[in-house]
Formats: sequence, C-alpha cells, structure tokens
Amino acid sequence: MHNTANPLNFEIINTGSELLLGRVLNSHQQWLCNELVQLGFEVARQVAVSDASQDIEGAVREALTRADCIITTGGLGPTSDDLTRDCIARLLGRRLLVDAKTLASLERYFAERKRPVLESTKVQAMVPEGSIVLHNANGTAPGLVLEISPNPFRHDGKPSFLIMLPGPPRELHPMFNGQVVPLLTARFSQIHPVTYRTFRTAGSGESQLEEKIRDPLKPLIEKGLILSYCARIGDVEIRIGARDAEGASLLDPAEKIIREHIGECIYGLNKDLLETVIIRELTQRKQTLAVAESCTGGLISHRLTNVPGASEVFMAGLITYSNEAKCRLLGVPLEIIQKEGAVSEATARAMAEGARARNSVDYALSVTGIAGPGGGSEHKPVGTVFIGLATPKKIIIRHYLNRFDRETFKNATVQQAMELLRKNWE
Amino acid sequence: MHNTANPLNFEIINTGSELLLGRVLNSHQQWLCNELVQLGFEVARQVAVSDASQDIEGAVREALTRADCIITTGGLGPTSDDLTRDCIARLLGRRLLVDAKTLASLERYFAERKRPVLESTKVQAMVPEGSIVLHNANGTAPGLVLEISPNPFRHDGKPSFLIMLPGPPRELHPMFNGQVVPLLTARFSQIHPVTYRTFRTAGSGESQLEEKIRDPLKPLIEKGLILSYCARIGDVEIRIGARDAEGASLLDPAEKIIREHIGECIYGLNKDLLETVIIRELTQRKQTLAVAESCTGGLISHRLTNVPGASEVFMAGLITYSNEAKCRLLGVPLEIIQKEGAVSEATARAMAEGARARNSVDYALSVTGIAGPGGGSEHKPVGTVFIGLATPKKIIIRHYLNRFDRETFKNATVQQAMELLRKNWE
Repeated sequence: MHNTANPLNFEIINTGSELLLGRVLNSHQQWLCNELVQLGFEVARQVAVSDASQDIEGAVREALTRADCIITTGGLGPTSDDLTRDCIARLLGRRLLVDAKTLASLERYFAERKRPVLESTKVQAMVPEGSIVLHNANGTAPGLVLEISPNPFRHDGKPSFLIMLPGPPRELHPMFNGQVVPLLTARFSQIHPVTYRTFRTAGSGESQLEEKIRDPLKPLIEKGLILSYCARIGDVEIRIGARDAEGASLLDPAEKIIREHIGECIYGLNKDLLETVIIRELTQRKQTLAVAESCTGGLISHRLTNVPGASEVFMAGLITYSNEAKCRLLGVPLEIIQKEGAVSEATARAMAEGARARNSVDYALSVTGIAGPGGGSEHKPVGTVFIGLATPKKIIIRHYLNRFDRETFKNATVQQAMELLRKNWE
Repeated sequence: MHNTANPLNFEIINTGSELLLGRVLNSHQQWLCNELVQLGFEVARQVAVSDASQDIEGAVREALTRADCIITTGGLGPTSDDLTRDCIARLLGRRLLVDAKTLASLERYFAERKRPVLESTKVQAMVPEGSIVLHNANGTAPGLVLEISPNPFRHDGKPSFLIMLPGPPRELHPMFNGQVVPLLTARFSQIHPVTYRTFRTAGSGESQLEEKIRDPLKPLIEKGLILSYCARIGDVEIRIGARDAEGASLLDPAEKIIREHIGECIYGLNKDLLETVIIRELTQRKQTLAVAESCTGGLISHRLTNVPGASEVFMAGLITYSNEAKCRLLGVPLEIIQKEGAVSEATARAMAEGARARNSVDYALSVTGIAGPGGGSEHKPVGTVFIGLATPKKIIIRHYLNRFDRETFKNATVQQAMELLRKNWE
C-alpha cells in the first residue's frame, strides 16, 4: 500500500542494457526498495534504462524534476558502456576532476594483484565536481553522491540528493549499508523510521502460517499493526511493523501472539539464515557435524560453509552420488542398497550412521533422493527424498515428496535437512 | 549498447506496490524484455510504480508522450487496488463498457467452480471503448489492447499501441505468447529481428577482454555491429548483434576476430554454463570426475550436480574441511600438511592425486585455500588458493589470490577450478 502521508519522493534508476534485453533479472530493485523501506523511506518509482547516454540522461533529468532522492545503479565501471558518471556530470554542467584518493586506491588494488593499471581503468577516479566519494571496498569504481541545490530541473527549485552506486551486488550492498545509510539518515532526518520485527520460519507454507495467526492478530492490525509475508522455498518471512510510537506499542503483544501460535516454526530473526543458526548453535555447544549428501549434491555443505567460522564445527561433507561411494565412504552395506534401493529409508539411515561414526562427529545429516528430471519410477517418483539425522542418542528419518524442478528440489530438501537438525539438538 | 537506428520505442510499465516495497522480485521485466528481443523489439525503458491511481496515470501519461508501444502488467483484477483499467480509461477519456463475451466467460468460470459471481468480480468485464479484448485462459481478468490514434499526448501525434496484461505470470505468459505476439508482429511488421551471438568466457576480466578485441572490431562497429559485455565473477559474456541484413553480414567476420584474439577464453555460447560444458564433455568422452574441496565447501559439487545427468559422470565429492579428513578421506600424508600447511601447493597436489586414485576416476579437481574473513597470515593472506587437477597423464597446480568476501571468493574459485579442467581434457 502506498503511504500518501510520506512527503518524500525516492526514485531508483537502474542502468544496464542487459536489463532491457532480458538477460539478467533486476535484483537491485527489490534489494534497494526493501532496504529503504526498513529505513522508513518508500520508493515512488523505479526505472530501468539501457547503457546509452541519451537514455540515462533522459531518466535522470525526469527524476530531477520531482524526486527528493535519486539512486542510480550501474555504469560506473571502466568499459566503454559505463556512462552514468559522464552523463550526469554533463547534464548538471559539472566538471570531472581526478579524485586523488580513488586513484591511489586503484593503483594499490592493481599492484596487489600484480596487474598494470590500464588507462581505461583510471577513468574511475574521475568524479563530478562537488561529489562525496564513497570508497568501494570490493571493486574499483567508487560511489558518488551529489547534492543538487538549487535544482534547476524542479519547478519549486527544491534540492535533489543524487546517489550513484556501482552495479555488481557485492559492491553495491556493502557500500549502501556502510556508507549510504548514514548519509540518508542524516540528510532526511525528519523521517520517522518504520520499526520492524522479522521472524524467519521453516517447515510450513505461507498460507498455513497465515491461517494460524490471521485471526488472533486481527485486533492489532485494526489498531495499525503492519503485517506482511515474504515466501521463498522452504522459508517464509513474517514481518510486523509500526509507523509511529503508538504502533510500536503493538509490537510486543503481536510478537507474543506469533510465538504462541507458530513459535516452533521460527528459526531466527531478521537476516538470520538456517545455516547461520546451525553453525552458531554448534559453536556454542562445542559440537561437530558431518554431512552425507546424494541428491542435494553438495548444497548443504556449501550453505553451511558460507558461514564464517564453519570450519570449527563442520568436519566433512561426503557427496556420494554413486552406490560404490556410499559403500566405500560411508560404510553403507551393499545389501541394503541392493534390497531397499539407494533411495530408501534404510539407506538414509545407514548413510547418517556411517557419516557420524566414521567422522567422529556429534551429528550427521544424510540425504538421498531423486532430483529428476530422470530416474523416477511409479513407486518412487521424481521428488522422493529421505533425510536422516544421527545424533548422540538416536537416528531420525524423514520422508518427503518435493515435486519441483531440479534446483528447487535441491533448495527445498536442504531446508528440510537443516530444519531437522535445528529441532533436534541434544 | 542501444542502437539508435531502431525506430521503435517500447516501454514496459509494471504496477504493484509490492514491487516498490521490495516484497517481490520483478520477474516480468526480464521475461517480457527477453520475449520482445526475440521478436526483434527492444525495450527502451521499464518503469515500476505503485498501485495508486496517480502513480499509474503519471507513468502511462509519460510513456504516451514518446512510446510506440506500451505494455502494462498488473492492476486488472477485481480487488480495490486493481486500478490500471480505470486509470487508463479516464486518462484517455474513454467510457467503460460491458464486454458481453467476457461477462459470459466470467459467469461460466464461476459456475464451473460452483461459486457465485460477486459484483466486484463483474468489474473485470468492463473494458475501455474500442479495446481489443484478450481472453484469459488461466484467470478472470482479460487483457486489453488499445490503438491510441491520433495520440494527443505526443508532439508529433504519432499513434501509440497500448497493451494491458494481467499480473500473475501463469496468466501473463500464455496470453502474451498466444495473443499478443500475433498482434505485435502484425502491427509492427516493418521490424527486422535482431540477430545475436553470445560468447561466454572465463579466466579473464572484462577490461582485459575488451582491451584485446576493441581495436580489431572497431571497423565493424563503425559499420553497425552491436557489441556489448556483461560481467559476473569469473564469467564475462560478450555479445555481438546486428539489426538488419547488412549488419548480419558483419557477424561472421566479427566472430572470427573474437575467436582469434580471445578464443581460448570462450567456454560456450548463449546460455551455456561452465558446469554444463564440463558435464557434457565428460559424458561425450565417457570419462568420470571426482572433486576434493576444502575452502569452496561443496560449491563445485553443487554446481556440477545442478546439471541433469551429472550422476553418470560425477562420482564423488569430498569436502575435507579438517586436516584429519584430508588425511583419512584423500590420503594426504600428515607430514605434508605439517610441513607445507593445509593451504599449499603440496597439499593441493596430494588432494587431487588422492581423490583421483581412491575414487577410480579419470579426473580429480582439488581446492584448498583461505576464504576468510579469518585465517589469513602475512605469508598466506585471506584469498590465497591452490587448485589442483589430476588427469590420466599429469597433475597441474594453479595458485591464485582471490581477495573477495567469503561468498564471492567461493564463486571465483569454483570458476577457476572448472576452467582448469575445461582446458585440460585428455
């Protein structure tokens, strides 16, 4: 819902021909909008244009006629189709000057990598006169911030705050969080941030969760509580929010209701991921984990090892695609595979037991299933999966039917496996 | 690169507050752009606005001042925030009339489901005067097409073709393919489809590649060749295109120049991925692969097993995070780890040798390094990685310094490892 009370007009301009050719998905729009909403800002309009200078210039010029804050992404790099910086300098009649600090940082970046600094690379150190320069810790192109005041493009002459950010997400995200957020909150200090609490759940679908909390939360929603959902595969986010002090008083009772009705599904808060929660818990317990994966092909191990510090508690991952590897690396008896099949409760059990014993760990997870598109049968259709967990005291096996495409199958199964461990600490 | 020779101006307007709140990813933009490119159309601009009528009206009014074709998505349904149809009718001064065929189809739809037709539902049968009505085979809201001629919003009075489509993908996609495509090709029959060739490369940065092909391609670009780049971590896409028959004659000579200068970096065409190319090659050669991963934590195995049919050639993945696992599962001598370190050329070599011998495969890849943020030293800083490849005839070791955040480090390293195998088939 659009909040007309919000007096500020934010616009996002994503540049990049690849966006308009449909080559890549524009993930920046969602990411930036979501971050801005959490700060209390709402985006009125998002525009994507090609790399061509007339398209970039046209979009920025239009935004300048009405926006209090404009955020552009892309076009700050070294190649011939990186034109955002030049276009905007020209449009605003500002000279491009060498930023000595950026140039030095470019030279250091390339020296560390033992590569020469090309002339085309140095263009990234040219910044429009009057820019605040945002250092890029993960790349070479700095971000640029301009206060356009007075703003000749706006009827009322009101200023526009113009922020140019690099396109690659791993450069954009930390620059936004580390440097743009403080600038925005200082520049637009009149805004009352929306207060949010986010509960992350696994193991239940969006409708099932909604069914359980909708009615109990109704009275609070009528008093102004904001409630929203964001569903991914095997992972549903529930968010409650408030726009003012009165609304903020509803958050505690709302959280109580949510925890009462769906508490067992909540694995974390805010930006927690299941893998983060698991590595954190293992670390605190000083316990260890091994994983034996067949159909998930390494994705459980990959997700767990994304968490810094995983090496202290994650001992080994065995990706046993072949039957021979299941026997040799995990000690699964060949008779079990021959009698029950590689995709069976008995094999999942033997994999988990074997992985736990052979790696001398506290917990072992095992997964065996049919990811598809081939390999299914009437008795064991594509999507069949058995997940095993061996703990110090017991072995638990779960059976699911995850009827998705291959990649979604892997994602859904990994969530189920991690959730099984999260619910069975010992 | 935007080609100014293209006389047609297409614009997409996506409506939906959920887009601007960052609740959902805007997949319509990519999908529609990609479909239009294949028909020979390019989108000049894409805009997302909220559900509010003033926002929708503003975006459509602006597009009408310059676009030959405008495609809107969303806001055609029965609920109170579905305002696209009403806004556009009001903006154009067209009456809303009942479309008898749509009303009958609505009544049939609900009768089949044994549900009453609510008054709010019937609004979907109201269409702006003069509309072409597109039947919705997968929902209730029809698509609407209007020829705005003469166009009062455009200086030159040139007509605009305005297409309103429903928001849900399962309604939008078949309606576009089945009904909009024939309308577009008839209405804009003068368009010659753009021909593209895409080369996918690994192992070189965007600037390095551009440095090598820019000058040799210059004469062809001056004759109208379209050249563009799209860079991801360890993966740069180079695309050449032509807009007419004359331009198409430049593609063969351009491809020859590209292959001559950077041919060794090209691993595939169009939508190929490195893992697809590797699994395809292994399958054709009837050869097998095992992988021993330390710092990439399962990502090589995960990527390879995303490819359907991987189970025929990918035998096992060993994620040996601990030294003990490296010794036990791969047979790395403990003396090597103690003397040279777990992150060393000698360890990478022993891991690759061990993985190849123990799993009886033709090729084995090994990776050991420091993903960070912790674990670095002056001698071996964060980002240090050794990649090993054992083939039937030899062992190759590569040393890189991948100074990125943890996840990017993993992605970059996986590309380097797969590229090492791709270049060393035996």
